[in-house]
Amino acid sequence: MPRYKLVIEYDGTPFSGWQRQASDPSVQQSVEEAVEAFCGHAVRLHCAGRTDAGVHATHQVAHVDLDKDWRTDVVRDATNARLKARVPVSVLSAEIVPDDFDARISAKRRYYIYRILDRRAPPALDRGRVWHVPVKLDHEAMDRAAKALLGKHDFTTFRAAECQANSPIRTLDRLDVRREGSEIVVYAHARSFLHHQIRSIVGSLKMVGAGRWPEGKMGAVLAARDRSQCAALAPSSGLYLAGVDY
Amino acid sequence: MPRYKLVIEYDGTPFSGWQRQASDPSVQQSVEEAVEAFCGHAVRLHCAGRTDAGVHATHQVAHVDLDKDWRTDVVRDATNARLKARVPVSVLSAEIVPDDFDARISAKRRYYIYRILDRRAPPALDRGRVWHVPVKLDHEAMDRAAKALLGKHDFTTFRAAECQANSPIRTLDRLDVRREGSEIVVYAHARSFLHHQIRSIVGSLKMVGAGRWPEGKMGAVLAARDRSQCAALAPSSGLYLAGVDY
Repeated sequence: MPRYKLVIEYDGTPFSGWQRQASDPSVQQSVEEAVEAFCGHAVRLHCAGRTDAGVHATHQVAHVDLDKDWRTDVVRDATNARLKARVPVSVLSAEIVPDDFDARISAKRRYYIYRILDRRAPPALDRGRVWHVPVKLDHEAMDRAAKALLGKHDFTTFRAAECQANSPIRTLDRLDVRREGSEIVVYAHARSFLHHQIRSIVGSLKMVGAGRWPEGKMGAVLAARDRSQCAALAPSSGLYLAGVDY
Repeated sequence: MPRYKLVIEYDGTPFSGWQRQASDPSVQQSVEEAVEAFCGHAVRLHCAGRTDAGVHATHQVAHVDLDKDWRTDVVRDATNARLKARVPVSVLSAEIVPDDFDARISAKRRYYIYRILDRRAPPALDRGRVWHVPVKLDHEAMDRAAKALLGKHDFTTFRAAECQANSPIRTLDRLDVRREGSEIVVYAHARSFLHHQIRSIVGSLKMVGAGRWPEGKMGAVLAARDRSQCAALAPSSGLYLAGVDY
């Protein structure tokens, strides 16, 4: 019963999210069905980060147990052959890992990026792949404001009401805002994140970038530990799970 | 009768190309109908580069004559309001230009890029936006081989049979092959290109990158001035019109 670690890329647009739903299409179900089609038995995937509906991944990690010792390139290619042309999901690599490897629990650090297209014209090529904000944002003010959230804090302000984590305490290792060509990219790294934490933070940083919040307000709303102080959630379309360290 | 210069971005995937067709959807028709919807009269767009079916643009340029002196931001925003959600086309900017400005004839230089994803796993996020080549290519060999095509040459080898240009002579100002992250990007700049010239060149460079052609073969097939010596055409999905100088 070897355990495989899969690195998975997907366009989240057509999915209700990573996690299997009763009726709506999920990334998990798509990959599970593709794996089952070649290995011939039921499988269950466990991922590092259960992305929400519309959230993308350039580097999601999942583990799965197979009955037989398949070659890793066969696992990758046979799964892709069944995914291809049906859904925008691709297995980038497969490797055999020890039985105690758990894609979620073993993860030491998660890397997310959030893309904002701040220009008047709507995106044609990146529709569904960015947050379109029709005014120019001050990315330097956003970057300075972001620094108030670095380190270990109670992130209750930036946490979804339905978040199931035991504790609102998280340690943010990186929160940088950079202009890259015609867009703004936010880099967020941490061991783990609360539900909606990054989209809550980005929604608030955008208020700073648009000049509607002073830079110093980020620290104040964090300290308030009050969800009602958070700005509107940034849309899922701009968010990408971009890496996981073990 | 002011003349407007429009900069246009589009995802070429759903289109039969730039140019109006009797039945199939074209970028030209989409934009013309969007402009006509707000200005109230028939218009005709003339573009810098008539891209083929599936070819994208981050910066196509077109000119159009309107009956009335509309504000440039109204031209941009009113056109986008009618394009949005219907087709992946966006007008990035509109400006008033002299009556003798012609998007095609006045163009002094055209910039194209061609994206190749050279990895085993198919693209999930960039499906239809790159050429997926399932083996690693030697981009440095491709870059060296490309240099044989720089300057003024008879490009008959790299020209579509149906090309309507009077002369097969073109001057290639730049042809660079670079690795950028997980993909290879080819940069091609010239005053003008022959029909299928870049896709013919990229198809041949890929043979060099895959080790199936020696680097020196590029110069030889160019000198042959023989279409049958060209490798298979690279697909339209990787090609982007990325700029036009006037």
